[in-house]
Amino acid sequence: MMSAATRPLIGKLVICGVGLIGGSFALGLRRAAAVGHVVGIGRRRQALERARALGVIDEIATDWAQALAGADLVLLAAPVGQMDVIMAAMAPHLGPHTVVTDAGSTKRDVVAAIHRHLGQHLAQVVPAHPIAGAEKSGVEAAFAELYCGRKVVLTPLAQSRPEAVERVRAAWQACGATVVDMTPQEHDHVFAAVSHLPHLLAFGLVDELARRDNASVLFSHAASGFRDFTRIAGSHPEMWRDICTANRVALLAELDAYRDELSRLRAMLEAADGDALEAVFERARRARNAWAEGLPVHTQAAE
Amino acid sequence: MMSAATRPLIGKLVICGVGLIGGSFALGLRRAAAVGHVVGIGRRRQALERARALGVIDEIATDWAQALAGADLVLLAAPVGQMDVIMAAMAPHLGPHTVVTDAGSTKRDVVAAIHRHLGQHLAQVVPAHPIAGAEKSGVEAAFAELYCGRKVVLTPLAQSRPEAVERVRAAWQACGATVVDMTPQEHDHVFAAVSHLPHLLAFGLVDELARRDNASVLFSHAASGFRDFTRIAGSHPEMWRDICTANRVALLAELDAYRDELSRLRAMLEAADGDALEAVFERARRARNAWAEGLPVHTQAAE
Repeated sequence: MMSAATRPLIGKLVICGVGLIGGSFALGLRRAAAVGHVVGIGRRRQALERARALGVIDEIATDWAQALAGADLVLLAAPVGQMDVIMAAMAPHLGPHTVVTDAGSTKRDVVAAIHRHLGQHLAQVVPAHPIAGAEKSGVEAAFAELYCGRKVVLTPLAQSRPEAVERVRAAWQACGATVVDMTPQEHDHVFAAVSHLPHLLAFGLVDELARRDNASVLFSHAASGFRDFTRIAGSHPEMWRDICTANRVALLAELDAYRDELSRLRAMLEAADGDALEAVFERARRARNAWAEGLPVHTQAAE
Repeated sequence: MMSAATRPLIGKLVICGVGLIGGSFALGLRRAAAVGHVVGIGRRRQALERARALGVIDEIATDWAQALAGADLVLLAAPVGQMDVIMAAMAPHLGPHTVVTDAGSTKRDVVAAIHRHLGQHLAQVVPAHPIAGAEKSGVEAAFAELYCGRKVVLTPLAQSRPEAVERVRAAWQACGATVVDMTPQEHDHVFAAVSHLPHLLAFGLVDELARRDNASVLFSHAASGFRDFTRIAGSHPEMWRDICTANRVALLAELDAYRDELSRLRAMLEAADGDALEAVFERARRARNAWAEGLPVHTQAAE
């Protein structure tokens, strides 16, 4: 038996979907000397070969039996639309000592898939969502520091064993993240507002301009404000398709609230009501600056 | 008479509105040794005192007669809503050798104000718009390199003297900018789409979230995507009030086109049509990535 001093937090780690998110988790754990052996599994052999060549994973598994043998932790880091297929495939090979977590950007649908496919294993499953990303995707974009100072949301099941929750929490903390707990419902409502909606809005703006006849002229004059506003429109289309459809009810509500806001702004513009526009801009600036300085953002009363 | 070697491009420069934009212009010219003496004039004595303390200006003018005496170039760098008042005040004191330019973010309204107040001086007026900014405003945020590698749009009047146009062009080039010419109409349509609309959308999103009862929870979970998307919501409210009202007709058209896009996205979400959403996201990502790499963005055919 290994001594405690030499036994890493996670002896054998399995990453399903070795892209930016899964790859950075493996690299973060390696940097912290918190993982022994890393196995990758996924749809695209070529991506797994690159991950191995980059030193992100040690081994490529061609089936779940091989991947899960003796595994301490499995991270499902594929787009949420694949969770059903993945869980169905892994379930028959899942032993009692392997903890399962995920990095899905939505949580109610992932929890539902867990109940459908891993109902016999609920004690060892701990859903999670690391709040980190970049406009680049793929394992080439992965880096060990991605999660440093970022938040990771855990949405433990009622049935999740405390030791399983602690193993997942400790792994993310080893990557430098701050771990917070929420319910899946809270999670999906909050992130519909502060993440999913902004992504939809940025994709929509770029798409709308790119379809125009004078697209090349328009883009040639876009500057730094446009660059930052649209950075998230460079995000992974499949991943965002899955997020939008998985969280569509909450996202529809957010989109409708935003469309109401645009109707209000439109009426102010139509009426050339500079005072009303300035009040909106001032309120937004105050909130945005407070947030950027790390201060709490108190509810702003509308006039 | 000074020798050509020691005579700077601009002997005496007047900046009306010494904030980020005007202050950075003065600092950029100083860095290039392209300006002799810099005079500041404006609404707020305190801001001018700070500008002088920071070395951005050499002298504070208390009236236009003092400011304009012997001036080679005047830059009007105040919010566009103040242009009428400013031009009316300066007109009686404007000698024939002083070239007048501005940094207004809209151009048709500035050109209209020029015709109203400087009709006797059209040959010496060259409207312009530097495509640069930051979420910080005020002279403390000014720096000499703000315009390096940025574009400046000139919208010369039919009556602008070639020497006046060249003086303005040379000054911006001395700041490191690339100068392009457009008509005021082209300018206002293009920037309604790629600048004014994104600002309105970002202000609107932050405002809408900040007015909610759970604003502090929402903002506490916002991450890097939100940060970049909303950076421009930290912009100067008065400046953006003026831009929105000055360019309201073009901006209304852009807002309506965007609202149509959101209606299309809403229908896709409602129908849980993942393929249609993914096609939008893929098109947007392609355009955004091409643009970010400095490639031309060709019109994308909608499916």
